[in-house]
Amino acid sequence: MSVLIKDGWIVTQNSKREILRGDVFIEDGRIVEIGKIRTEADFVLNAKDKIVMPGLINAHTHVGMSDLRGLADDVPLDDFLQRMWKLEENRGREEIYQGAKLGIEEMLLTGTTSFVDMYYYEDAVAKASKELGIRAYLGWAVVDEELTTQEGSPLQNAENFIREYRGEELIVPLIAPHAVYSCSEETLLKAKDIAERYRTIITMHIAETRREVYDHRKKYGMRPVEWLEKIDFLNEKLLGVHLVWLTLHEVKILASHGVKASHNPTSNMKLGNGGSMPLVEMLQNDVTITLGTDSTVSNNNLDMFEVMKIAAILHKNERWDPSVTTAQMILDFATINAAKAIGLNAGSIEEGKLADIIVVNPRPNGLPLRKDTIVSNIVYALNGLNVEHTIVNGRLVASEGKIVKD
Amino acid sequence: MSVLIKDGWIVTQNSKREILRGDVFIEDGRIVEIGKIRTEADFVLNAKDKIVMPGLINAHTHVGMSDLRGLADDVPLDDFLQRMWKLEENRGREEIYQGAKLGIEEMLLTGTTSFVDMYYYEDAVAKASKELGIRAYLGWAVVDEELTTQEGSPLQNAENFIREYRGEELIVPLIAPHAVYSCSEETLLKAKDIAERYRTIITMHIAETRREVYDHRKKYGMRPVEWLEKIDFLNEKLLGVHLVWLTLHEVKILASHGVKASHNPTSNMKLGNGGSMPLVEMLQNDVTITLGTDSTVSNNNLDMFEVMKIAAILHKNERWDPSVTTAQMILDFATINAAKAIGLNAGSIEEGKLADIIVVNPRPNGLPLRKDTIVSNIVYALNGLNVEHTIVNGRLVASEGKIVKD
Repeated sequence: MSVLIKDGWIVTQNSKREILRGDVFIEDGRIVEIGKIRTEADFVLNAKDKIVMPGLINAHTHVGMSDLRGLADDVPLDDFLQRMWKLEENRGREEIYQGAKLGIEEMLLTGTTSFVDMYYYEDAVAKASKELGIRAYLGWAVVDEELTTQEGSPLQNAENFIREYRGEELIVPLIAPHAVYSCSEETLLKAKDIAERYRTIITMHIAETRREVYDHRKKYGMRPVEWLEKIDFLNEKLLGVHLVWLTLHEVKILASHGVKASHNPTSNMKLGNGGSMPLVEMLQNDVTITLGTDSTVSNNNLDMFEVMKIAAILHKNERWDPSVTTAQMILDFATINAAKAIGLNAGSIEEGKLADIIVVNPRPNGLPLRKDTIVSNIVYALNGLNVEHTIVNGRLVASEGKIVKD
Repeated sequence: MSVLIKDGWIVTQNSKREILRGDVFIEDGRIVEIGKIRTEADFVLNAKDKIVMPGLINAHTHVGMSDLRGLADDVPLDDFLQRMWKLEENRGREEIYQGAKLGIEEMLLTGTTSFVDMYYYEDAVAKASKELGIRAYLGWAVVDEELTTQEGSPLQNAENFIREYRGEELIVPLIAPHAVYSCSEETLLKAKDIAERYRTIITMHIAETRREVYDHRKKYGMRPVEWLEKIDFLNEKLLGVHLVWLTLHEVKILASHGVKASHNPTSNMKLGNGGSMPLVEMLQNDVTITLGTDSTVSNNNLDMFEVMKIAAILHKNERWDPSVTTAQMILDFATINAAKAIGLNAGSIEEGKLADIIVVNPRPNGLPLRKDTIVSNIVYALNGLNVEHTIVNGRLVASEGKIVKD
């Protein structure tokens, strides 16, 4: 199966961050050639006056909750959490499958080609992912056994899930310990052991709220990241999520262990977390930054274009300096950096890379189209509904507002 | 000419903020009936599974600059201003007309039915507005004569413009003194006099940056709002824009004179203004709040849905409290409040109101559609490209991604 994308503005995200005009040829799921292409293809997409760019990578969500959109807004965080627990109490595989379908459709239609998920019953999310053709990094959520109504042991469920789904082409199973306040040292180290045995990444909420930090200090006498270092939990396979309430010392700890960061500014702002992830300090310490939407309950959509813009402007405002973020930096977070963080051979349009590509129509909100402002338009002007075609692993999975069925 | 919108979820924004299911009948530019309607119409729009709501009101932009999108990002404010002045130096009526066309198309396609503009050569913006059919509140920008390369006196130009365009059905001409640092006391009072003689509103940038406040104190010994009160400039016809760096005392001054506020959070954040408009204090003092995009150079789009979301989450984050803004409050800012601020008989779907209405398709990012979360979805989940039809003054002006030509 071959696809030819004709005559677009190609935002390559290659090492030179080149913007090219021309065609992209895809065969058997990979990008084979970029330039002026004469080869015939099974399928041709006309990208004249459109942007061809790497699919966006959503580095944190809970997609099985997508049908709960809007059910816990505008209330203090404790009320939010209580409402969520109540809503989630009676949800089984069928509800999570339906929620995941809704959320994955939204992601594909708004330009996300890969996502990192954290939830229970990830087998239901895997089913929806396979049906819709998205690339899915599915983290089975782990909490201490006494905190969950899940059948069986969360650690055992996670391991079973990884064993069952590893080797799938588009599903990457992994383990997702929930947070320091819901996982004991023993649970965390067992989760790390599972990740090591199956060579998966780990993802975990860390330092999302002041309360988490305060409670942790009270219980353990140190801040979450300090404690995670002490118990030997930190390594380069960990994708930490939120990382809002950190000291500079903790940033340096994360950096020294090669921990990756998933920044979720929209969710943090909407929940009134108060702080912001110390982006500038993380960049100064070479932490790899990615972006995530979080769930539709705390965001309330899964639009990575919107997250890019909010990430950019939040830090400009926090630092009273518009130069602390640039459009190119932010686009990197959502593409090439995220691919690096999750070990995916994608995130740029280069020969040999997996063909996770979107075609974006800039009308009317991303015009004029100019080489020197195209990245600015992507980050500051467009949104997910500008996406016209979504290709995952060389296959057209969404087109002109509709999911493409096999 | 009559239009029937059939079978929608009607977000009325009436005094009870009712959400109704049913039809809206429009005749000769007005909303005539809401409910189950059997009357035949010249034109029928099917709104099944869609949201029918008041068109959004953009309470601040400079639409003639829309083609300059992305040309001054990610640089400190002084560099930004210098770059803008350079870009604007040689722009005449033709460039402004072309810029306005691009921006007005974007507004109509993303659900804005009225806008308040500030720029020079507003006659060129009026031409574009009339051609495209938007409701336009056009403020001719006034600065001290020695600061401008405009032909003639800015005050005289503004007065001529108002005289020429008053009485037009969809164009409301007004006067727009630029700021305290570009207008002397004499200029401001003459502008106020023109507004009083022609009974127009006035709009003006106020307290956008710390530097403005600092410089003003140095020059006049008082803060901008204190000084504007002293020179007797403040009244209920003034729509102040930005209002970021205010003391509580200044909020109370604005409230006591009935000044209206145009909040432009995206622009303020992107320019790194640092502060945020003191929304909570303004609400406590009953200031009427509206929302604006600002220009495509500082935003960089004209999507009022996006501004609603950013306004909501900015203040939650600033105050560490998600309950300080609610979706309903924010939707009010962009509809019924804005209509009140500019003296427009619109902003809600009620019998007798002007028919400025949009039909919004919630797929995929605004689902599920439920009565208790529909306002949340509008503010937190949707964006301007969800808008499917835009009606201004009873006429369909944009539909399914395209401007409707006469």
